[in-house]
Amino acid sequence: MKKLEVGILGATGMVGQRFVSLLEHHPWFEVAWLAASEKSAGKTYAEACNWRLRDPMPKSARELQVHECKAGEHAGKIPQLVFSSLDSKVAGEVEKEFARAGHVVVSNSSNHRMDADVPLLIPEVNPEHLALVRGQRKERGWKGMIVTNPNCTTVGLAMSLAPLEKAFGLEKVLMTSMQAVSGAGYPGVPTLDIMGNVIPYIGGEEEKVERETQKLLGKFADGRVTPGDFAVSAHCNRVLVEDGHTESISVSLRSKAKLEDLIEVWRTFRSVPQERELPSAPKHPIVVREERDRPQPKFDLNVEHGMATVIGRARPCPVLQFKYTALSHNTIRGAAGAALLNAELMKSEGYLD
Amino acid sequence: MKKLEVGILGATGMVGQRFVSLLEHHPWFEVAWLAASEKSAGKTYAEACNWRLRDPMPKSARELQVHECKAGEHAGKIPQLVFSSLDSKVAGEVEKEFARAGHVVVSNSSNHRMDADVPLLIPEVNPEHLALVRGQRKERGWKGMIVTNPNCTTVGLAMSLAPLEKAFGLEKVLMTSMQAVSGAGYPGVPTLDIMGNVIPYIGGEEEKVERETQKLLGKFADGRVTPGDFAVSAHCNRVLVEDGHTESISVSLRSKAKLEDLIEVWRTFRSVPQERELPSAPKHPIVVREERDRPQPKFDLNVEHGMATVIGRARPCPVLQFKYTALSHNTIRGAAGAALLNAELMKSEGYLD
Amino acid sequence: MKKLEVGILGATGMVGQRFVSLLEHHPWFEVAWLAASEKSAGKTYAEACNWRLRDPMPKSARELQVHECKAGEHAGKIPQLVFSSLDSKVAGEVEKEFARAGHVVVSNSSNHRMDADVPLLIPEVNPEHLALVRGQRKERGWKGMIVTNPNCTTVGLAMSLAPLEKAFGLEKVLMTSMQAVSGAGYPGVPTLDIMGNVIPYIGGEEEKVERETQKLLGKFADGRVTPGDFAVSAHCNRVLVEDGHTESISVSLRSKAKLEDLIEVWRTFRSVPQERELPSAPKHPIVVREERDRPQPKFDLNVEHGMATVIGRARPCPVLQFKYTALSHNTIRGAAGAALLNAELMKSEGYLD
Amino acid sequence: MKKLEVGILGATGMVGQRFVSLLEHHPWFEVAWLAASEKSAGKTYAEACNWRLRDPMPKSARELQVHECKAGEHAGKIPQLVFSSLDSKVAGEVEKEFARAGHVVVSNSSNHRMDADVPLLIPEVNPEHLALVRGQRKERGWKGMIVTNPNCTTVGLAMSLAPLEKAFGLEKVLMTSMQAVSGAGYPGVPTLDIMGNVIPYIGGEEEKVERETQKLLGKFADGRVTPGDFAVSAHCNRVLVEDGHTESISVSLRSKAKLEDLIEVWRTFRSVPQERELPSAPKHPIVVREERDRPQPKFDLNVEHGMATVIGRARPCPVLQFKYTALSHNTIRGAAGAALLNAELMKSEGYLD
Repeated sequence: MKKLEVGILGATGMVGQRFVSLLEHHPWFEVAWLAASEKSAGKTYAEACNWRLRDPMPKSARELQVHECKAGEHAGKIPQLVFSSLDSKVAGEVEKEFARAGHVVVSNSSNHRMDADVPLLIPEVNPEHLALVRGQRKERGWKGMIVTNPNCTTVGLAMSLAPLEKAFGLEKVLMTSMQAVSGAGYPGVPTLDIMGNVIPYIGGEEEKVERETQKLLGKFADGRVTPGDFAVSAHCNRVLVEDGHTESISVSLRSKAKLEDLIEVWRTFRSVPQERELPSAPKHPIVVREERDRPQPKFDLNVEHGMATVIGRARPCPVLQFKYTALSHNTIRGAAGAALLNAELMKSEGYLD
Repeated sequence: MKKLEVGILGATGMVGQRFVSLLEHHPWFEVAWLAASEKSAGKTYAEACNWRLRDPMPKSARELQVHECKAGEHAGKIPQLVFSSLDSKVAGEVEKEFARAGHVVVSNSSNHRMDADVPLLIPEVNPEHLALVRGQRKERGWKGMIVTNPNCTTVGLAMSLAPLEKAFGLEKVLMTSMQAVSGAGYPGVPTLDIMGNVIPYIGGEEEKVERETQKLLGKFADGRVTPGDFAVSAHCNRVLVEDGHTESISVSLRSKAKLEDLIEVWRTFRSVPQERELPSAPKHPIVVREERDRPQPKFDLNVEHGMATVIGRARPCPVLQFKYTALSHNTIRGAAGAALLNAELMKSEGYLD
Repeated sequence: MKKLEVGILGATGMVGQRFVSLLEHHPWFEVAWLAASEKSAGKTYAEACNWRLRDPMPKSARELQVHECKAGEHAGKIPQLVFSSLDSKVAGEVEKEFARAGHVVVSNSSNHRMDADVPLLIPEVNPEHLALVRGQRKERGWKGMIVTNPNCTTVGLAMSLAPLEKAFGLEKVLMTSMQAVSGAGYPGVPTLDIMGNVIPYIGGEEEKVERETQKLLGKFADGRVTPGDFAVSAHCNRVLVEDGHTESISVSLRSKAKLEDLIEVWRTFRSVPQERELPSAPKHPIVVREERDRPQPKFDLNVEHGMATVIGRARPCPVLQFKYTALSHNTIRGAAGAALLNAELMKSEGYLD
Repeated sequence: MKKLEVGILGATGMVGQRFVSLLEHHPWFEVAWLAASEKSAGKTYAEACNWRLRDPMPKSARELQVHECKAGEHAGKIPQLVFSSLDSKVAGEVEKEFARAGHVVVSNSSNHRMDADVPLLIPEVNPEHLALVRGQRKERGWKGMIVTNPNCTTVGLAMSLAPLEKAFGLEKVLMTSMQAVSGAGYPGVPTLDIMGNVIPYIGGEEEKVERETQKLLGKFADGRVTPGDFAVSAHCNRVLVEDGHTESISVSLRSKAKLEDLIEVWRTFRSVPQERELPSAPKHPIVVREERDRPQPKFDLNVEHGMATVIGRARPCPVLQFKYTALSHNTIRGAAGAALLNAELMKSEGYLD
């Protein structure tokens, strides 16, 4: 099978590098077009990109030319499918321009996530929300479309909540995060700010987590999404971890449940990506650890190639009903891997033919 | 005024070192007697102690002899007042032995904190609980007594809650901690466990925080303490910070309050130690920061010489009513400084005459 | 081909864990027998071992029983080949006991490295020294033998020097190390000692590096090794790195050489393990990086599966003649991988038939 | 005594903040004028400066207005004495402009350090070099002057070498540094670059250390400085330390010396700043530690308020003659404190009257 050519907007950033890395041996897609800021345009990827991942830059990407983030014919043929990890300062307009020009924009940027007609998607959680694009294209008159994935902190939370919402109904969710520095991109967090320190604030993060979680777990009907009817509160903190957001979570459920019931629905959670065996789908989207001190970023980050949410320490909560710890890889499942799985879902539904 | 001689049980450990350091220039007390494990006994303090504080070991302590942790006349005259930072494996029996022998044991160890007749004390929060010692001495037939301070994680939480409980009544409290490695003593946390990592478990810690907070904010009447009638839930995590426990806290109150009301009662909080100007009392036991990203261990740890609780980021909580971040120095306000202030309170009440 | 069964002495320590991990899919060897301290004996490996590697414990090892470190029939049949990563407090006697009992002890411990009749071996550097075992067995009357690999800090240095010694002759070598915490084993370095810090001292390390380097690069003739005739000076420091020792090295050579000549002999360096394609042999034992800021542990640690020495920043030295930076994985090439390659060399020479 | 008003060029950077902090309670000087980049100009210091020191911003500085870095009357009266911690991209021209306009520019920037007529000064090491300014003013026709202090890595090295050069003569010096991140300013080193890592390269640093050391220890005669006649080689590395450069140093001397002789000349080293009791002068410019594992940044950084060089681990070197470890505070003794002591020396010599 000939692979589908794809482009990357914002290819030189941390998430852009993850896209390039994850796509290196992808069975369906191959990177054919890269774009970044003006100062990178015209250089090869090897010249333009300060590669920061531990694994080396894929050879196939080194000599690709970096273009400006403009749709149209200036830059040879731009592929139909374009991943976006643009900075939110510019993503809003650029992504619309590409969608208008007929591209399928699968974005990790925050700008359009809360647009009523833009799917905010986790394929295991709300694959039916993808149908929002019909109205999006119709009303906006676009040949292309924009599809988004949630914030890196939202993903692990929403993954852990999805089976609970389905089985028991959610009433209240309180989450405190301890987030990795890679979430802030590169150069990102100065060493002098975070070494030996905790920063109890990440701009805009708590609002994103609270609203995105409700949209993700909302009901899709009549062409629109009604946000989930449960309260969410987030405390977001930065700690000295490279990759992996750890979250202390307390929940109240609408129907009666025992601790074993929660563990059971987590362990048995499977969804569309698993049924269709999408290439980037984890076999177990949720992995439950029984040791008393897990999950930990050091040991659990790369379970299922960074695509699983790892849950542990499930126990009763004296204030809400249950509490547990969840861990998710913020630049894989929380960013580039999330968008990639979205694109795979879309392909499996015929959106990329 | 001649200073009162004091002893230290567990003088070579991390908290023991803090005692020695804090007592160096104390206006009321002076270190005269040190005790530690058998293998230290007979050595000078300089020989026995692997000093780990940044400030050098006080000269006055270097040549003091280290004794075994036994009451009686084997070791010259042991002072009436003895601070204890013994490991909880041995503290239970040793502290009772010293109390029985007539010593006032002001302990940082966890063993007796929840004993019904032992005061668990924060002088700003529940100074009236000190009166528990009357029953303790009477029923146990002791000439001495045991008084304790709370766990290092409890202190900052309880300090931040005390004015809320008094002004508005507490209903629910949910706290997630990000705790410093010094809380685990020395050698404590191996580097290989915590570098680039978060450990979402600290043995026994969550139970301590939950129970101690209720006892601290309980009512004293008829010679006993009735625990506070509010729910407390704790998630405890270890992060790569040297000193300073950061806590993300959500609360619900019994009576109506606005955010400004909380800030006002925090800012104006004063109590017995401030009124009596006890030597180790912070002028402001609670310091409120208004920057959006504070408190942080790096910048706020040593406010009021490590004796204040620093609060910031007060805002509404979508699940409970309010949320905020609190920071407290875990080996000063959360350990040695806490015991020292307890002893000062006791002296001011005539218990050490 | 049926795999050769092997044993591991000190199987629960950090290096022991590396042995288990590296042997998981080894084409020649398989782990059949594990031994550790008395308190581990009788447990399964999963019970006895606090596994600290990021990759999970191999399933095949989990249920193996852990024995005491005693030769003889008490513990079923102990394999002929036994790897040792015992603590140097006990390795001296235990390894001799096993060699006496007929085992081939391939040891990472320091105790016998400098024994005149014990090979201190890097297969790329001095494979001919292996012949020392003939005299060892004869004079000691052993059926078995002891073969050792160098200290984790020596390996990268000696690898980088070997082609220089051969091509140009060495006169002077000055090395300053920045060593990872994993080199101290587990629990090893307390967090409170090393966070935000450099420790400019590692007990015994400098002496080991200086003497071992001379033995490794010494001449074998008439059944004995004459140490290399060059001066070596080592400064050893501990820094906050998990794995990977970085070394700043200056050298003077005996014959004239240009910078390009050094780079050429490093790049083209191949030796017996490469010729025989031993399973753990790196294709390129030395990898030269041309970027101005490499090698770095973060990016270069796992080159050639942690079996290469990565060299960069080669440039003239105003005091000696040349200077450069070398990086080597301290628990793979510097410990378990080193011993494994020694065993592979021995098998290829018929010592394990 | 009325204090002398001083200005600071580059007041919002890391070294600028140190100037403000060190000058807070200075007996001779007081901060009256601040300048920084255009985007800061017009704001108060509290508004313009992202304060990164642990101690809070001095109240006296908060409301000072920040000006542009231009000489002349645009900004009220600019004090005669101006400290400069400008970025080297702009320092070259700005400092000349201020000197031309009559200001005494005491600079921490690297631009003019190696100018033949500009003193590169450590008051304990080469106070006589200050006389270079006579020629500087004459030939350049300036009313003002420029005086510089060395690079943060050079200072500790040169301090440790000065008494050796004087007593025994230096022949060869080889230094490997492990440098703190604060040396790169703010935001400086990205966390993703340095956590769990060593970076074996700092742009331009090795050349600076090698040349500056020779100039500092050079002879002043006939109005010029002849560089010291000894070889210097530097390996410069960045490690995860906040403040404090640790250096592994080997030396060869011209005349015979024993280890005790070195320790003696270090211990007894006193110079002009000590004799004149300059306010920022350490009582002991060199402090020798005898523990086998010192100096360490964690414990020795703030000896003598960060103005001493702490030496330890003196021992024979098998390649050169002696080796030892030196530690120096890079933003105090290595930057702002260095410039401040230079200004105090100049005042004591009448240059500021």
